[in-house]
Amino acid sequence: MNGAEQLLRTAADNGVTACFANPGTTEMQLVAALDTERRIRPVLGLFEGVATGAADGFGRMTGLPALTILHLGPGLANGLANLHNARRAHTPVVNLVGDHATWHRDADAPLTSDIESLARPMSTWVHTTERADQLAADGARAISAALAPPGGVATLIIPQDTAWTDVDAAEPSAPIEPSTRALVGPPVIDDVAAALREHGERAVVLLGASALRSDGLLVAARVQAATGCRILTQGMPARVERGGGLPSFASVPYFPEQATEALAPATLMVLVGATDPVSFFGYPGQPSRPRPDSCQLLGMATPEDDAIHALDALATALDAPAAPVSAVERPQLPTGSTLGLSQLGAALAALQPEGAIVVDEAITSGAAYAAMAVGAPSHDVLALTGGAIGQGLPVAVGAAVACPDRRVIALQADGSAMYTFQALWTMARESLDVTVVLCANRTYRILQVELMRAGVVEPGPAGVGLTDLGHPSIDWVQLASGLGVMARSVDTADDLVDALRVSLATPGPSLVEVRL
Amino acid sequence: MNGAEQLLRTAADNGVTACFANPGTTEMQLVAALDTERRIRPVLGLFEGVATGAADGFGRMTGLPALTILHLGPGLANGLANLHNARRAHTPVVNLVGDHATWHRDADAPLTSDIESLARPMSTWVHTTERADQLAADGARAISAALAPPGGVATLIIPQDTAWTDVDAAEPSAPIEPSTRALVGPPVIDDVAAALREHGERAVVLLGASALRSDGLLVAARVQAATGCRILTQGMPARVERGGGLPSFASVPYFPEQATEALAPATLMVLVGATDPVSFFGYPGQPSRPRPDSCQLLGMATPEDDAIHALDALATALDAPAAPVSAVERPQLPTGSTLGLSQLGAALAALQPEGAIVVDEAITSGAAYAAMAVGAPSHDVLALTGGAIGQGLPVAVGAAVACPDRRVIALQADGSAMYTFQALWTMARESLDVTVVLCANRTYRILQVELMRAGVVEPGPAGVGLTDLGHPSIDWVQLASGLGVMARSVDTADDLVDALRVSLATPGPSLVEVRL
Repeated sequence: MNGAEQLLRTAADNGVTACFANPGTTEMQLVAALDTERRIRPVLGLFEGVATGAADGFGRMTGLPALTILHLGPGLANGLANLHNARRAHTPVVNLVGDHATWHRDADAPLTSDIESLARPMSTWVHTTERADQLAADGARAISAALAPPGGVATLIIPQDTAWTDVDAAEPSAPIEPSTRALVGPPVIDDVAAALREHGERAVVLLGASALRSDGLLVAARVQAATGCRILTQGMPARVERGGGLPSFASVPYFPEQATEALAPATLMVLVGATDPVSFFGYPGQPSRPRPDSCQLLGMATPEDDAIHALDALATALDAPAAPVSAVERPQLPTGSTLGLSQLGAALAALQPEGAIVVDEAITSGAAYAAMAVGAPSHDVLALTGGAIGQGLPVAVGAAVACPDRRVIALQADGSAMYTFQALWTMARESLDVTVVLCANRTYRILQVELMRAGVVEPGPAGVGLTDLGHPSIDWVQLASGLGVMARSVDTADDLVDALRVSLATPGPSLVEVRL
Repeated sequence: MNGAEQLLRTAADNGVTACFANPGTTEMQLVAALDTERRIRPVLGLFEGVATGAADGFGRMTGLPALTILHLGPGLANGLANLHNARRAHTPVVNLVGDHATWHRDADAPLTSDIESLARPMSTWVHTTERADQLAADGARAISAALAPPGGVATLIIPQDTAWTDVDAAEPSAPIEPSTRALVGPPVIDDVAAALREHGERAVVLLGASALRSDGLLVAARVQAATGCRILTQGMPARVERGGGLPSFASVPYFPEQATEALAPATLMVLVGATDPVSFFGYPGQPSRPRPDSCQLLGMATPEDDAIHALDALATALDAPAAPVSAVERPQLPTGSTLGLSQLGAALAALQPEGAIVVDEAITSGAAYAAMAVGAPSHDVLALTGGAIGQGLPVAVGAAVACPDRRVIALQADGSAMYTFQALWTMARESLDVTVVLCANRTYRILQVELMRAGVVEPGPAGVGLTDLGHPSIDWVQLASGLGVMARSVDTADDLVDALRVSLATPGPSLVEVRL
C-alpha cells in the first residue's frame, strides 16, 4: 500500500464518496489508487473549473466534501474561480493537488510554482505533506477542516513521492474530528425576542446559510407572524429551499440604490446565519453597506451556528403562532410565438418536477423565473455565491452526482456558460439527469447595464465590442452536440414548452437554447 | 480625463498596441477608456485564459507587452495557467486586474479575495494602485518591469475608484525605463573558447532563449564547426526559428532516462541563454538533473544577457569558419488512406507556407512533425514553455494579432484544446489567419504513458476512465462550427492534404480535425 492508497482509504472510511478529477503526471498514483478504493466514484472533468465547481455542487447538496484532483499550481489555478464560489458558499471541499516530488522541488522544473500562495486566498486550510506516512493523516485533517462549521475549502498539496512511497498497510485510518454547529444560548435568544417585540414592523430578520432550508423558513414565518417583523434573505445563497407551499421572502436587492431603499425603514436588523449586507460592487456616491447607520445590528446566529435551533428557540420565546399558509399556484403555461424572460420563467416554473435542483447562473435572464417559482413544487435553488461566473454547469454536474434521483435544472446565461461548458461532456459521460436551459441573449447584458451605470450611455466600438457575444453568434446546439449532449434551440413559447417537456422527461442530459 | 484614460494613454505612448480583455463590472472604466485611446486594439476573449495566452503569443512574436484586462481575483485566477507559461517563456505581459474601490475592500464583498497572493507566483512584478493620480505612473512601471530582461509578467491591480476618479489631463505620460540586455565581457568569452577547444566533441553548448533565433543558430553552427562540440537546444522554448536552411539541433530529451543518456558523454556544458537542464517531472530512481556530476558547467550568457552578441564574440575568439550549409528538402506529400503521426507531420511540413508561425501544443502527436519541418521554409515554433496545457489556441490568437501577414498553424492536441477552446471564437471574430490542426487521438495519451511509467500496466476502470476522452467522443467539427470557425474532419492522408491546402489558402481561421 502506498501513500496515495492509504489516503483514499482514509477518505472513504471518513465518508468521502466522490472525486472530481482532472489529473496530470504528478497525480498518477492518486488515479491508480482510485482503482483500489472503489467506494469513491471518480468523475473526469476536461477542465479543472469543472472539477472544483462539481465538488461545490456535490457539497452543497450532501453537506459532505468531495475530493478534487488537480495538477500542480496551474491545475489548481484553473479551479480557483469555482473554489472562490465554494468558499463563499461555505461548501466543504477537499482539494488534492499533486506537486513535484519533495526532492525535485528545488530544481524549479517548468511546472513548479508557489502552490500555497495560489491556494490560500480560496482555502480555509492549506497544507503540504512532507512524508508518505503523514499523507493519510493529513487527508483526515483536510476533511475535518472542510467540515468545520460553517464548511470550507481545504487544500492538501501532495508531493508525488509521498503518494508513491510505501506505507504501513495495517495502520488504521486516521479519524476526523467531529463537527457540530454551536448552539445559541438563551440570553441571546431573549435579547432578540425583546428587540423584535420592541421594533415590530421596523425590524428586519435577515436569513442566510442554513436558515434558508425549509425548517428555517417555516419558523421564520412564525416569528414574522408573532412580531410583524420583515423577513429578508441574503442575496446569492449557496442553497435555498423554495416552492411546495414554503413561505417565500424577498432578498436584499442587488444594486445598492435599491438595497438602501429597501432597508431605509429598518431600525433593527437581526442576523440569522447571515452577515451584515454589503453592496456587490462599490459605486461612486453609494455606501458599501446599505443598512442605515441608525439601524441597530443584532447577531443571533452566525453562519457557523445552528441557525435552525436558534430560530426554534426564538419562536418558543415569542410564543409564536403557526404561520398562515397561503396557497400559491403554478403560473399558467405560456403559449404563442413570443419568447421573453416572463415566458421563460413561467414555462420553467410550470413544468419543473417535484424535487428539482435549480442551479441559477442566469444573471440578468433569471429575474422573472424566481418570482414565479414560488408556486412550483418543492425545490432547491443554488445561486452564484461568489460572483465568479462559470459556476452553473459544473455545480449542476456535482448536484446531479449527489442526487441521482432528482432532476437538475441549470438555468444558465450564455456568457457565463462559455467559461466552463466543458461540463457538458461530463454530464454526457456520466448520463446525469440535467436539463440545461441556456438563456442566449448574445451579450454580457449585465456589463451593458454596468457601462450605463458608469455613465457610458453611447459606448464606442470598444464598449460595444467587449460586451457583445453576437459576432459571431454562438451555436449552442452545435456546441452541446459536439460534447455528446442532445440539444434543441427554441425561439417561441410553444417550442420552449415542448422542448422543456421532452428534456425533463428524458433521462440523461439535454440542452435547450432559449433564444431571447 | 480619469485614471483609466490616463493609464491607457500612457501605455499607448510607451508602445502598447493590443489589449486582450475579459472584463467585468470593476473594469468598465478601462473598457470605456479603450474608446478614448484608439491606438490600442481591444480583443475580447470569452474566458480569461484566452486573454492571457493571447498576450503571451503576442509578446513572444513582438517582444512587446500586450495588456490584459481581468476581473478581480477569480478573473485573474482563470488566466493564471497561461500566465505561468508566459512567465516560463519570459514573455513581457502587463495584466490590468480590476478590484473593488479602495473604500469598498474592507466590506469583504462576494468577489473580494487576496489578489496579490494569487498574482505573485506567476508575476515578476505585482503592485496595487492606491490613488488615481498614481495609476498611469504605475502602468509605466508595470511596462518597464515586463520589459526588463529577460522579460516577464507584470500585474497591476486597479481599485475601481482609481480608474474612475478624474486626474490632471495635462500631465505628460510617465516614461518607461529603457531595457537593454547585458553584454558578456571578453574574459568570459575567452574562458569558454579555451574550454571548448579543450573538451572538443565532449563539450555540449546548450542554447536557450534568444540564442534560438536565426542569428544565434547560425553562429552556433560556426562554433560547432570550429570546435567539434555538440549543440543542443533547451526543451519547450518560447520561440525557436526553424527551416529555410537554418541549422537544426536536437533538444535535450523530455524523459530523464533519455536525457541522462544523451548527456552522459559530456564533460563540459556551456549555457547560452539556457539554464542547467532539469527533468520535467521527478521519477523514482531518476535524478532531478540529467547532467552527469562529472560534467563541468560553464555559464556564458544567462537568459537576461545578449546571447547573440556573446555567440558572435565566441565565434570571433575561435576564429570560426563559416558553417557548412546542408540543403534539406521538404518531405514528400503523403498519399493514400493511412493517417498517422508520420503522415500528419509530412503533410504539414510539406505544405506550410513561408513564414508560418507554428504554435506547438501537440503533446504526443507532434513528434514526427518536428523532425520533418527541418526542411520546411523558414518558420517560428512556439512551444509549451510551462507545461500548463491550454496554451496553444490562445497563443495562436496572440501570434496572429501580432503578425497579420503570416499564417499561424496551431498544432494542437485534443485534450489540451478542451481547456481554452473558447479561443476559436476570438479567431472567428477577429478573422485571424489561423489553421488549427486538431490532433484527435481521443485520449490523454501522455497520461496513459505516465500511468505505465508508474507501474500501472493494466489500469482498472478509474485509470482507464480518467485518461480517456472517447466516451463520448468529442465532435470537433461541431465545436468549431458552433464558435464560428469553419471545420472539417479527415481520416485519410489524401483528405488531410486536401483540407490543409484549403485551410492554408483561405483567409481567416479554420480547423482540421485529424482523426488519429
